[in-house]
Formats: sequence, C-alpha cells, structure tokens
Amino acid sequence: MSTHTTTPIKAGIVGGTGYTGVELLRLLSQHPDVQLHAITSRKESGMPVADMYPNLRGHVDLCFQTPEEAALDQCDVVFFATPHGVAMEQARGLLDHDVRVIDLAADFRLQDVETFAQWYKMPHSSPDVLKEAVYGLPELDRDRIRQARVVGNPGCYPTTVLLGLAPVLQAGRPLIDTTHVIADSKSGVSGAGRKAAVGSLFSEAADNFSAYGVAGHRHHPEISECLARIAGAPVGLTFVPHLVPMIRGMFSTLYLRILPDALDTDFQALYEQRYAGEAFVDVMPAGSLPQTRSVRASNMLRIAVHRPAGGDTLVVLVVQDNLVKGAAGQAVQNMNLMFGLPETTGLQHVAVLP
Amino acid sequence: MSTHTTTPIKAGIVGGTGYTGVELLRLLSQHPDVQLHAITSRKESGMPVADMYPNLRGHVDLCFQTPEEAALDQCDVVFFATPHGVAMEQARGLLDHDVRVIDLAADFRLQDVETFAQWYKMPHSSPDVLKEAVYGLPELDRDRIRQARVVGNPGCYPTTVLLGLAPVLQAGRPLIDTTHVIADSKSGVSGAGRKAAVGSLFSEAADNFSAYGVAGHRHHPEISECLARIAGAPVGLTFVPHLVPMIRGMFSTLYLRILPDALDTDFQALYEQRYAGEAFVDVMPAGSLPQTRSVRASNMLRIAVHRPAGGDTLVVLVVQDNLVKGAAGQAVQNMNLMFGLPETTGLQHVAVLP
Amino acid sequence: MSTHTTTPIKAGIVGGTGYTGVELLRLLSQHPDVQLHAITSRKESGMPVADMYPNLRGHVDLCFQTPEEAALDQCDVVFFATPHGVAMEQARGLLDHDVRVIDLAADFRLQDVETFAQWYKMPHSSPDVLKEAVYGLPELDRDRIRQARVVGNPGCYPTTVLLGLAPVLQAGRPLIDTTHVIADSKSGVSGAGRKAAVGSLFSEAADNFSAYGVAGHRHHPEISECLARIAGAPVGLTFVPHLVPMIRGMFSTLYLRILPDALDTDFQALYEQRYAGEAFVDVMPAGSLPQTRSVRASNMLRIAVHRPAGGDTLVVLVVQDNLVKGAAGQAVQNMNLMFGLPETTGLQHVAVLP
Amino acid sequence: MSTHTTTPIKAGIVGGTGYTGVELLRLLSQHPDVQLHAITSRKESGMPVADMYPNLRGHVDLCFQTPEEAALDQCDVVFFATPHGVAMEQARGLLDHDVRVIDLAADFRLQDVETFAQWYKMPHSSPDVLKEAVYGLPELDRDRIRQARVVGNPGCYPTTVLLGLAPVLQAGRPLIDTTHVIADSKSGVSGAGRKAAVGSLFSEAADNFSAYGVAGHRHHPEISECLARIAGAPVGLTFVPHLVPMIRGMFSTLYLRILPDALDTDFQALYEQRYAGEAFVDVMPAGSLPQTRSVRASNMLRIAVHRPAGGDTLVVLVVQDNLVKGAAGQAVQNMNLMFGLPETTGLQHVAVLP
Repeated sequence: MSTHTTTPIKAGIVGGTGYTGVELLRLLSQHPDVQLHAITSRKESGMPVADMYPNLRGHVDLCFQTPEEAALDQCDVVFFATPHGVAMEQARGLLDHDVRVIDLAADFRLQDVETFAQWYKMPHSSPDVLKEAVYGLPELDRDRIRQARVVGNPGCYPTTVLLGLAPVLQAGRPLIDTTHVIADSKSGVSGAGRKAAVGSLFSEAADNFSAYGVAGHRHHPEISECLARIAGAPVGLTFVPHLVPMIRGMFSTLYLRILPDALDTDFQALYEQRYAGEAFVDVMPAGSLPQTRSVRASNMLRIAVHRPAGGDTLVVLVVQDNLVKGAAGQAVQNMNLMFGLPETTGLQHVAVLP
Repeated sequence: MSTHTTTPIKAGIVGGTGYTGVELLRLLSQHPDVQLHAITSRKESGMPVADMYPNLRGHVDLCFQTPEEAALDQCDVVFFATPHGVAMEQARGLLDHDVRVIDLAADFRLQDVETFAQWYKMPHSSPDVLKEAVYGLPELDRDRIRQARVVGNPGCYPTTVLLGLAPVLQAGRPLIDTTHVIADSKSGVSGAGRKAAVGSLFSEAADNFSAYGVAGHRHHPEISECLARIAGAPVGLTFVPHLVPMIRGMFSTLYLRILPDALDTDFQALYEQRYAGEAFVDVMPAGSLPQTRSVRASNMLRIAVHRPAGGDTLVVLVVQDNLVKGAAGQAVQNMNLMFGLPETTGLQHVAVLP
Repeated sequence: MSTHTTTPIKAGIVGGTGYTGVELLRLLSQHPDVQLHAITSRKESGMPVADMYPNLRGHVDLCFQTPEEAALDQCDVVFFATPHGVAMEQARGLLDHDVRVIDLAADFRLQDVETFAQWYKMPHSSPDVLKEAVYGLPELDRDRIRQARVVGNPGCYPTTVLLGLAPVLQAGRPLIDTTHVIADSKSGVSGAGRKAAVGSLFSEAADNFSAYGVAGHRHHPEISECLARIAGAPVGLTFVPHLVPMIRGMFSTLYLRILPDALDTDFQALYEQRYAGEAFVDVMPAGSLPQTRSVRASNMLRIAVHRPAGGDTLVVLVVQDNLVKGAAGQAVQNMNLMFGLPETTGLQHVAVLP
Repeated sequence: MSTHTTTPIKAGIVGGTGYTGVELLRLLSQHPDVQLHAITSRKESGMPVADMYPNLRGHVDLCFQTPEEAALDQCDVVFFATPHGVAMEQARGLLDHDVRVIDLAADFRLQDVETFAQWYKMPHSSPDVLKEAVYGLPELDRDRIRQARVVGNPGCYPTTVLLGLAPVLQAGRPLIDTTHVIADSKSGVSGAGRKAAVGSLFSEAADNFSAYGVAGHRHHPEISECLARIAGAPVGLTFVPHLVPMIRGMFSTLYLRILPDALDTDFQALYEQRYAGEAFVDVMPAGSLPQTRSVRASNMLRIAVHRPAGGDTLVVLVVQDNLVKGAAGQAVQNMNLMFGLPETTGLQHVAVLP
C-alpha cells in the first residue's frame, strides 16, 4: 500500500493476454503508485482478466475491453504487450493526448528502420515517433529514459548480453577483441509466449534441449545496434539462443578474448565498479555460479565474472527472469523513471526459491 | 531380427503425425515381422517422416503420402492414428480388400451408437462395421481379438481402470460395492496429443497440477460400457482425470468399498491369479508402490493392491505408459494376436529408467 | 514498507536451512511489521544466509548463528523450521521469557501424545506445553490462535483436507457419509524438504508419478484428530498421498458420499457461505477447475466443488502452495493473529503465473 | 533374439546401483549375444536388482552379490560402473584370468598419471595396466579397441566435444584457430549420478539453469589430452559445463574461429565425409537444429554444422544421450568391437520421442 497522497499513475495495457501482459498485471497490481485503468483485448473483451489468469483473482477486478471502450487516452501511461507492429500504429495518437508509451515489443527498439523492416517483415509506420523513442535499458541510459515520452523496452536476450558486455566496452580503453564476441544464451520456454505452437508444447519442450535461430535471430540486430552505440564501433557478435525446459529464466554465457595489453585487468573490480549503486544488477563475488532461480519472479539480474585458469578468455555469466528484468519488470522500472518515482518502487519482490 | 522366413505383415498407418503415430512407427520399425508399407498425412505429404520425428532418422525411410498414393488396400493391416471419425469412414473399404483395421481413436470402442454420438458429437457412420468390431483389450478378450477383422483400441484411461477392476468384478462372487467405484486418474501431457493447444504448452502445464473433465470425460462412457459387460450389470463410477507435468505415464488410483461378506478375501492372491501368465500385466508384490517411470516406453502395466490399515477400502494402483500400453503398444499387441504371432513379438523393450 | 510507528515484531527462526526456512525468510523479509532478529543453524553458523539462498541477496543480511549466539529469548516470536522433536525441547524456555512459539514441525499438532509417540517414534517431552498449544489453522480456530502462546502449524496435507471438508462437517446437519471419506492428495517435491534423499533427486522424481505412504502417513492421524474435533465424532478417512514432478503445489481431490437426506443441498452455496470473508480461502465459481500454479508462491488456497452428473458423490478440489499456505505463509498468518495485526499483513503477494 | 549358435559373452558388472549400472543392465539384458553373469554391490548384496530398478522386473532376475560371491573371473568381460579408483585396483586380477575390462569411470581415460592424480585426488595404482588401456571412442580409435584388453570408456562431455571437433582437427590441413576453441556444454541431471546430493534434488535442479565447474572440470584434461593426440599439438580449450533441468541428454555448442586460409572450406561436406559409414554418428543436413530428445535412450550422436551469416565462426552442435553414447551404450559398443561382433549389435534401439 502506498503512503503518499499523490495521485496514482493511471496505467493501461494493450493486449494483455500473453505472458508479458499477465506479468505486468502481477507487478502493477502490487505497485503502490499505480492505478490499473484498463486492459484491452479485442478477442477476449468482456472476460474478467482473473478468469484467464486465476492467480489474479482477488487482486485485479478488470475485464478485458475493446480498445474503443478502454479510453486509453485518459491514461498517464500505456504499456503495449502486443505483437510487433501494433504499438507503432497507436503511439502517435497517445502522445498527442500526453500519454507516455512503453512498448514491450520491438517497434521502438531499433533506430535503423531498414533493419527493422528486414527482421520484422514490415515497414516501420511511425519513424518520427521512433526518432524520439529511447531504448529502455536504465543501467545504460537512465537519464534519457527519465525524459522520454516513448520507450522501446529491450528484448530479453539483449538485456542479458548488453549488461554483460557493457563494463568491458565502456571501460575507456580496449580490453577485449571486439571482432569475436560469443554469446551462448539459454531461455526458458515462456520466452516463446502464450501462443499455441507445437514447438512450445510440454511434450515437445520438456526433457529436451535444443538450439534455435542459429542462422539468425531478431535479437541479434538489436544487440548489435546497441553494442555499436556503447562501444563506438561495430562489434562482431556470434549469438546462439537455446531453449531450456523451464518456464522462466534466462542464462547467457559470454566468451570474450582479452587483448594482450589488457591481461592485467581486474575484471571483477571493473564489473563491481560499473554497477555499484545499481539496484537491479548484482555483480556476485568472484567465483560465484549464478542460477536462474535466484532471480525467479524478481527484477534482479545477476552477473558473475570468470577467467578460467587465469587465461586470456573472459567468461561472463548473466542470469535474469526473462519475464521480469527481461520484459515486464524492466517496463515498470522504466515507468518509475519516466514518472519521477524511486526506480525500485513496486519492484523489490524477493525471488521465489525453490 | 526375426528368424522366420514367413512373409512379413505389411502395415499402413493413417494419420501418423501425432504422438500415437510416431510411437507406432517406433514400435513397428523394430518389429521383426512387420514391413512398414505406407504412412499417410494429406497435410505433410512428401515430407520424410524422419524430418518430423528425428528419432526415426536411419530407422524409417518413408515419406508421408496422400491416402491416394498410399495404396492402403495392399496392406495386411492398417492402423488409424487419426482424430475420431476417420476410421469409421474408411474401414468398410479396407475390409472389402481383406485388410485388417485397428483404430486407435474411439470409432470402434463403444457399441452403443447413441452414446458415441452424444460424446463425440457426430453420428456413427458405420454401425455395421461397429457390430463386428472387438474392443481390443487382450487381457479381457483375447480370443475374440484373434478372430477380429476390426479392433477398437482402448482409450488410455480405460485400459488402466478396466485392468485394475477386472479381478474384483470377475471373481465369481460379489466383493465390492459396485455402486460407488472411484477412479482418480492422472496422465502425462502427451495424452493430449501433438495438437497446438494453449493448455498443453510447456509454460501452462509445467510445474502445475490440475484436474479436468470433472463434469464429464469421453473415457467415462467407454469405461462404463466395458464395466457393465464384465460385471454383468451397471457399475457406478466416479472418474476424475488429472494432468501431470510429465510427458509419458498414467497412474490410476482406484478406491473400492469391500462388501461386509468379502472382508476375508485375499485380494493380493486374487489379482495375482487373475493375471498369472499375462506378459504385460505385472501384479507387484504386496506393499509395492508402482511408479510410472517403471513402464516408460514399454508395454507393461503394473498393479499394486493395498488395503490401508486392513480396513474395508481397497486401493488399487495402476501404472502404464499412456502411449504404449495405453495406445500404440496395445495396438501392436492386438495386431500380433490378429495375425497369429506370439503376443509379445516386438514388444519386449525394457522400460527406460531413469 | 510499514506506515506505523509501532515497534516491529522481533522474529527468530530456528533451523532455517530447509525450504520452510527460506520461505519464512522470503515472507518475513518483506513483512512490514517484522524485524528479523536471528536465524540459527549449528551446522552452518557463520555463513551468510544469502550464500545458501542467493534469492535473498540484498534482502537478508543475517548470518546463520549457533543457538547460543542467537539470543532467541530476546525475540517476540520464534519460528521452528526444524525436524520434529526440536521445538518441544525449547518451547518451555522461550515461553518463560515471554516469547511466542510457532512450530512448523509436528510437535504441537497432535493433542494425543500416544499417537504422537507412535508416528514420530519419540515420546513427547513437553506435554504441558502441548496442552496449551493451539492447532494453527486460522479458518477453523481463529480466536484461540489470537490468544495462543504456542501454535502448532498444520501439516501441508492436513490444511487442504481439513479446509476442504470443514463446510460439510460443520453444516449443522449430517450431509455426507463420514465413515468413508476419501482424500487423494498430490504434492510437489519440495514437500520432502531439502534433505539429500535419493527419492527426491531430479532424475528419480522428474517425468514420474507415484503414490507413497499408502500403508500409513504421519499426516493421517493429524487429519483424523482434527476431523473428529470439528465433526464431533470420528471420521473414517482413506488418505493416499502422491508425488508430482513439480517443485511447489499441492492438490487434494476429496470424494464424499452424500447422504440420501442431503441430496438437495446446494453445496456450492454452503462452501461460499462457510468461507465468506476469508482472505485466504477462495471458493471458486461453480464448474471451476483449480490449478496449483494459480496459488504458486502465494498464501491463497482455492476450492472448487463438483457433483459429477448431479449424482450422490461430491468431489471437492483443493489447491495450495505447500510451502506457503501449507507451511510458512500459514505460520506468518498465525503470527499476525497472535500479535493483533491484520491477518493479511505481508501475505498479499499475487501468485506467480506462469 | 540372436540367431547364432555361438556361446554368449558372459558379462559381469561391478557396482551396478548407479545410473550407468542400470543402463548397462537395460542394454545388456536386451543384447542377443550377452549372458548377464553377475552384478555386484557390497551394500545391496542379496537384493534383487529389479527391486531397486523396477523397470527390470521380468527382464533381469539377478540379485546384487558381494564381489566374493560373484566369481567375476569367470566372466568374459567385466564392466566397472563404480566410483573412480575401483577399476584400477581390480583390473590386473581380471586380466590375469583373461577377462576383458571396460571401465566407465576415469581410471583408464588419462594416460598422464600426474594429471590423473591432480584431478582425481589419488595416485594411479595401476600404471602398467593403464599403459595398455585404450581410450574407448570407437569413431576415433576403432582398431586399437578391437585389440584392447582394457578400455577406458570416455566421459560424457568428452564424447560430444571430441566427436564434434575431430573432423576439423583431422582434416590434414589447418582449418581453425586451435588456440581458442570454446565448448559450451549442457547436461541433463542424470550425469550427476544417483548419489543423494542436495544440488541434484528435484527442488534444486528443476525450473533452473546454472553453470558449474567454470574454474575447472575433470573432463577438461581428458578432452585436452585427446585433442592433443588427434591434433598433434595442444589445443587451447575453454570448456564451460551447464546443468539442464532434464533427466537425460547432453548438448555441446562448439565455437571455432576459421583460419583466413580455410574460409572456402565446405565444412558440411567435411563432417559428412569424416563420419560416412558410422552407425552412431549422424551428421544432419545443413541447417538442422538437433534436439537431445532425438537421441533419448539411443546410442546415436547427432551433429549439425553451422556458419552464421557465412562468417568466420564455425558453430558445431552435438547431441547425445549422456547415459547411452555418453556412457553405457558406448561401453557396449566397445564390447562388441572387443569380441568381434557387429558394432551395432544390441544397440539399434530407436530413440524415445516424445
């Protein structure tokens, strides 16, 4: 419960039937400064949200509404938990009503509209809004997010890879061979969403492990564009995502070749300093082995830095909950910044373990 | 490898893209007396079966074919691993070409066509074929199966409940209160098939347990019809199926009230005698606690008989692999009987544990 | 964060290395009116709690302490998350220092010391404390818990069975045949605790389903004693627990035979009325099918009432998180009552789904 | 069933209570040319094997015996499914009775006894036997295995990494930068064995993903020694193993930097040619994405070769069942070679999917 007497933030959600939608509802319904105003789903309009998501019974009384009924332009902020391509159609109209927009899909992640068109198989319909949109990774761009009217919430994989690489790329001197960075990433199945697809069936995904998207994954250009921005030059990235038989959780193992001149770097200290004061990035003590469950249902991302046998390969291990820090939690973190709230408001849930 | 010089059985499969289809392929491709002749799927025609099911690479060279290409009337036996309603359309034509038919769906399970129509939402289109069809539970009706041209392969739940109840119902004297029999059954998710349905998604079914079909399940009338046949009178059954976060496996816990006059019965002995000599029913020693994994990927069904605190409630525990003894394995067992082979041919795989 | 200016409750935990211990820590560290004072583990003394449970990093700064260091007699309340037999040794000493005691093991659950000795293989060492102990099921005995100095926190299975049966047993007139009540219960593996036991290994429990304790389970006498209390006479119970390959979650399917004179009862209404106003018991709408994940990591227990085919068998479905409402959450609920706080304080987390 | 009239191979197993033990029993009990002679376990002596492993009921009638009772010197071959250090104590005695030895632990894997002592914390007690021992990876050293009296069966990880790298290292010309080879490997939990360890508990390993052994893993020196042998020079390897919440299955993702002069290599063809004719190595078509379940319970290992965006990084994906090709199946494959049987005898089980 909130103690302040300030007016709560009126929040709307477009397309709340998927996993990022229900996770937003879980977080926002417990957020002390938010009032849930509306949640839309044309297909499910009229159905109580809690009928689809029984965990919300007693916490969320809203019904799904059509966009017409929802009066989203009365909101302070609207989250898009929709397929790619929806937010860019509606953002301009909301901005004109002074509504902030946070898109959990890809519409405002890539500044390069051609890359967007290539990977998402549609032209970008709102390049002017895109221009003012900010990539919503607070640990990299907090100040711009505070001022933003439109935020492109990062993809789940990019969040782990970018936060795992930023310290070595922003160190002020060359530390690693940026022509050959390897990100071997592993995701729980909820990353594929609530869409009925054969590959996401229990009997297909359980007791099984596989790679996918080896020939190309949409998060690759997103990571690359951001890496270039923070490194000041293109970074050569090999990115291989894998599917893990677990619901939530994401684990990225990054392999970096340390430059000969940088072999004396104290990488543990480098990472600790880079993220000192960050509420949601935990650089674990040297030698730690992070587990995805240590962040389950929380907004924390944990990093461990290793250098096997003291050699010239740096191994960075990064874990997060793909639905929280990798999606809905980060969106709320961005909202907090955009509305001048303490960044951690409503996001301090302890991870659920076991 | 088979040692006989006899001509192999030419087998066809209609609709082999689902889990019972691939399981039939796994079993038949290792069966010493079977030659796989064709497998049909209109939708996937032309695709190598092993592309869809990579476990079959190197074992099955067939491609899916359209029914027209498949020339199923040249088979000795055709298995239908199709949705309900397909086999009854095609059985007559195959019989006319002297092809045996084994349907793994429900078309030939229920003799009462009205009950069929009520539960499967379609009229029975082939009542004359139905009349000669035999319910394919070998341990209950072996001799008739040997003579059958058409077999309705039992549902997975019915196999466990019927084999778990047969000894007390066929004992020759009243042993239990047949007005209140309770079957609390639990199934792995593969029982729902390979259909892309939200409820079968990994992220929905994993780390979760639920009941379903409490108000009514299609296997209920199937069990009831058979129970009436073997008991000689209607049996009052409460049947509640549940979904377990595992791929394969089925567990039925049966609760029976022992009649006052039958309290001195040695139920352990009764079950052991009833199934003495059965290759695929294992009555475990008194006190045993069967596990589904003890039959994973095998055609065995195991039973344990308990009488808690020596009271008047009999608890019967039954496990099977729903895809083998509960579907494809039992179909092969029926085929063996229909073609005069030893019943265990091609079915003696040891269960995979762990 | 709490808004009150009252002194927080100083809480201690004895034996916090198990799953109920870490779950207590998760809940208490987020409770607005609690100050964690100490957590003991002789074996792990000196180790930061967050090293064993990395989800607590940043939330709990305590180290495990020896009982000597912990100064538990300065607490307002001490939780015992210990093996059976520990709390009864230490309760008297704490009471003498005006410390409230909540035992999550079995020491104060059974009033019959002979039954205790028979099932827990040890004599009860503190029968005088036992006499004043209250069985901590708030929905059944809220007023006595408010006054209690010692609470025996219920077992996980008993919570589901007792709350599932209470409405029909407390209806004021005979509704069901109390000589033959059946509870078919299913538990996630965390119920077995964090003890290294072969049967709880991933490779043993995953992709598997089994029954256990059919010949007798410690929760049986606990349920029976309470049932007799609320029904005013012994209730004949058959209780069969099963192990589900999931971490958290408990599901009890109860089968009750409705008495001929009670066939006109509106059981849905009966349950809704019985639990009207209860914050942690959710009687779902008629026809509902509860899922364990709908209460994952929350203190909610959900009930659905069915009467298949309108017959004389009542099927009651009950779900809870075995570590929350079945253990640590209920303990905190009891603490809230004992200290005059609103019963829901610190317990309103939305369940985590998916 | 075998058709030959030759005397069966008498096989013994030392220490058959673990997962490699039961898997050996599953395979050997279905092997047409093997007679199971004895299985030892001092701790479980007298217990029927099928009581511990109910999947073997009806297939294996043996009881565990003490080594004294087992008369292993009458065997033709003895498998050691024991902890490290046991086989090297007993091998000499068996060889003196003309018994072949196949050790599934590490005693005869490393030729360098100092490396052995360093990683296994014990001196090698039988260096003379070690000298004649052959590393049992048939696809690399088939001819020597045929002549061997003692075989060190490879570790599970090394099997995937070595078979994944052999084609590029044995190509006859330099293809990759051998100073920086990366193996990101993932294993199911059964790889940790049946030992009661907290980290292998269901509630610890399920719905979780973690790395381990980043600072050093025993399979690292084993891989390195073999890589040096086949490459003719040391290979710089970074090896990071991870734990996947599945029972069986292993997946290695290998990252190799192609040398500038080798960029025109057709790696797909290279791999296909290298493994042409191999029964248990399946080089999948270009673009394939192997899944561990495609080899579940089978002796097959599948490889896919990728070159993302046609660049200079080669990504090799390798899957196997860690208990079969990674342990017991490979041991049987070695036995077949040692006794002049067709290499595939008893090993042609189709993988179990789903």
